[in-house]
Amino acid sequence: MSKKEKNFVKEITPMEEDFSRWYTDVVIKTELADYSPVKGFMVIRPYGYALWEKIQQFADERFKATGHKNMYFPLLIPENLLNKEKEHVEGFAPEVAWVTKGGNQELTERLVVRPTSETIICHMYSKWLNSYRDLPYLYNQWCNVVRWEKTTRPFLRTSEFLWQEGHTLHETEEEAQAETLQMLEIYRQVAEELMAIPVVRGQKSEKEKFAGAKATYTMEALMHDGQALQAGTSHNLGQHFTKAFDIKFQDRNGQEQYPYHTSWGISTRLIGGLIMVHSDNRGLVLPPKMAPVQVVIIPIAQNKEGVLDKANELLRKLKGKGIIAELDSSTENSPGWKFNQYEMKGYPIRIEIGPRDIENNQAVVVRRDKPGKETIPLDNIENTISGMLEAMQNELFEKAKAHREANTYEVEDYEQYKKDLPNRPGFAKMMWCGDKACEDKLKEETRATIRCIPFEQEDLGHKCHICGKEAKHMVYVARAY
Amino acid sequence: MSKKEKNFVKEITPMEEDFSRWYTDVVIKTELADYSPVKGFMVIRPYGYALWEKIQQFADERFKATGHKNMYFPLLIPENLLNKEKEHVEGFAPEVAWVTKGGNQELTERLVVRPTSETIICHMYSKWLNSYRDLPYLYNQWCNVVRWEKTTRPFLRTSEFLWQEGHTLHETEEEAQAETLQMLEIYRQVAEELMAIPVVRGQKSEKEKFAGAKATYTMEALMHDGQALQAGTSHNLGQHFTKAFDIKFQDRNGQEQYPYHTSWGISTRLIGGLIMVHSDNRGLVLPPKMAPVQVVIIPIAQNKEGVLDKANELLRKLKGKGIIAELDSSTENSPGWKFNQYEMKGYPIRIEIGPRDIENNQAVVVRRDKPGKETIPLDNIENTISGMLEAMQNELFEKAKAHREANTYEVEDYEQYKKDLPNRPGFAKMMWCGDKACEDKLKEETRATIRCIPFEQEDLGHKCHICGKEAKHMVYVARAY
Repeated sequence: MSKKEKNFVKEITPMEEDFSRWYTDVVIKTELADYSPVKGFMVIRPYGYALWEKIQQFADERFKATGHKNMYFPLLIPENLLNKEKEHVEGFAPEVAWVTKGGNQELTERLVVRPTSETIICHMYSKWLNSYRDLPYLYNQWCNVVRWEKTTRPFLRTSEFLWQEGHTLHETEEEAQAETLQMLEIYRQVAEELMAIPVVRGQKSEKEKFAGAKATYTMEALMHDGQALQAGTSHNLGQHFTKAFDIKFQDRNGQEQYPYHTSWGISTRLIGGLIMVHSDNRGLVLPPKMAPVQVVIIPIAQNKEGVLDKANELLRKLKGKGIIAELDSSTENSPGWKFNQYEMKGYPIRIEIGPRDIENNQAVVVRRDKPGKETIPLDNIENTISGMLEAMQNELFEKAKAHREANTYEVEDYEQYKKDLPNRPGFAKMMWCGDKACEDKLKEETRATIRCIPFEQEDLGHKCHICGKEAKHMVYVARAY
Repeated sequence: MSKKEKNFVKEITPMEEDFSRWYTDVVIKTELADYSPVKGFMVIRPYGYALWEKIQQFADERFKATGHKNMYFPLLIPENLLNKEKEHVEGFAPEVAWVTKGGNQELTERLVVRPTSETIICHMYSKWLNSYRDLPYLYNQWCNVVRWEKTTRPFLRTSEFLWQEGHTLHETEEEAQAETLQMLEIYRQVAEELMAIPVVRGQKSEKEKFAGAKATYTMEALMHDGQALQAGTSHNLGQHFTKAFDIKFQDRNGQEQYPYHTSWGISTRLIGGLIMVHSDNRGLVLPPKMAPVQVVIIPIAQNKEGVLDKANELLRKLKGKGIIAELDSSTENSPGWKFNQYEMKGYPIRIEIGPRDIENNQAVVVRRDKPGKETIPLDNIENTISGMLEAMQNELFEKAKAHREANTYEVEDYEQYKKDLPNRPGFAKMMWCGDKACEDKLKEETRATIRCIPFEQEDLGHKCHICGKEAKHMVYVARAY
């Protein structure tokens, strides 16, 4: 191994040494994103954006299959609209960017760069909606939003991020609730089926819910370091906004009614989760369904007769099977350098093929998530590889799930929990009385928060672990990103 | 026809009466877009956004097939970056929105909401680029931009619009020029092959080129009213920005060089062009490849036995052929109301099917762009309809081309041109000496501008039609949107 190659691998800080630096190293060195000249704003580089495109495509298909259509609302929102829903403005006003000048003129009313679009969308819905016949409104937009964050990290928390925000209106409360849960289920599919990230689904506490929501539902994932990540939320907004914005429709009896309202979103933050669930000290690990390139073929001794021909034949076979494959026949770098490069970038499978392999009608195959090499016959290799990709997708999910399970535990005693927590990250399950006082105390004393009241409740006794009073819910508690 | 139905049709102002109101009526009444509470900003409604998705999909596929990848850069650009390229800042500074406050803090440096992203992208490219081996950089982003416009119109000119902006770097001047023209060719395909809008391609004059470009290439389309629309531009930026932003690479001889640079964009403005090229006094006309729904089936006397079954069977047949079809079996509105509704919204084909049709094994078919009805057999109807859609796509293009040709004429005498112009809109072909003085004079005296120096030059004499001096180019002149 040359000096250059060694340095190349050394570039990523081991996660045991400094998890936060490991994360940043993976993001920056694999060219997923970079810091921009505006503090807190990131540049999403092509390799990172390709991951976002996978998420968009998968989610958008499911939004459309469930009857949703896309639309686009203005980036800038007049201050007076933001002010209309009381909880909402209190939640968002402290963290927005203000446009105060357009061209050479001071504006008479300041404009907010959207932190989310409920207000401007509700303003327009109130103009458009007439009758129950127009309902449901099932609309979504893919866009950028800005929230002026003090501490930022690429993908996980940035002052600008990309997301989708769905905004629906319904005739009845039941329909709105069903929509809220349907969208959370689609988000689960995005996390688990596409990204191989297992999630716990549940309801947010009053304190943690979206500013202006009646109820917020969430999916929470556990990272390598035992911290939680809120990976997507779906809000039942009740009639809070529809009343504040005077959205009305004529119901089936000719009476005026306020419709029921939902909103839901996932964002580029998911890419942060993807990294912190699957990657390792050698760099990215990508589940095959997320990988911009699933298989890279690296010819060995490619100047020897027949090697490149065979490598190209292999490439065609894989592509013919619908596998996203590439052949790296560049001559500037050695095969060893290429191995490191593609490992760091998380290509799921690498195939090496040289003169001796060809002689034996075989190829050497390396799965990114497993140690060692495997030799497989060239006959039907496209089916073998296809099966390996499928297995890898499933195994990454199972591995992440096992990690979560190993790091999920029941709290027996709150004082003991506080002592143990610094050395025992992960999801702590405990009973909670439902009072904000206990929630505040928990956060103050441990920096951990109630991640959710999970749909799958367990009986861990009838007393709140924090105050000892009658318990209402079993909750998942963790420190979170 | 009931009163309600008559009113329904009357809602669109005839274009002969007031072209500008006709345009706005089509946009608003067919629910493509709406005015927003922020002056100059529009809401793109789902039906309008579906058109943008068709454009995105068609273009993005071709960008990727030519080796481009997508990425995403920050919305906000520090003032000092905008100031780095002199012509660029002069062109854009007067029309940008300024963010001066983030959260509760006044910013120490004002931020511009991107009007285009050359500056921030070049800043990052200068950090990333090392060697000729990294070139070419073939990157694009789909995003929103803001330009503070004084006079706005939905789609055609709005203070915020959606677009894509490609930004590429190349080793040689020749490659950059080839890229610039390749992207213009892809834009031509978007306009002509997808949207059925014929375009004239050529080069912009020095006065009309992009602020900071070496050369700007454009495609220009002619609207119903004889005004031109700049429908897409591709810029060869030479080394203007790469020098200003100190972007360098080591060339094949180990020498430091500045790369050659291009940028290119199309936007939601194209939807304005689509409307003004194909639509009529009854509303939208959509070329089949652009239509969110290509065929609507309307059952007649649908309460009669067998009608809905047959309509559903027909729907399945069409979908099986890959046709985007819908069945409107709603009972609130009469078939007549539905006919008007779908005509206004520009559905390319409507199929009516009732008991008598079923008896005769036929259906009634109406093409949106042609008068009259046609009766066709139900056997193989999916093939008949598929053929009709294809014919309609081609005929709309040919019709638009014939309209353009009928409204393109050679100027013989400039004084006569000035007199005739108010009653003779369209493309005027004339000879030009190349001097800005003549260009300025033309604009001042006629409000018409040089749209482009077309690639297909014609010989209309050797004297500039404006000043009489030696002519350099044949140009297309028109009043424009």
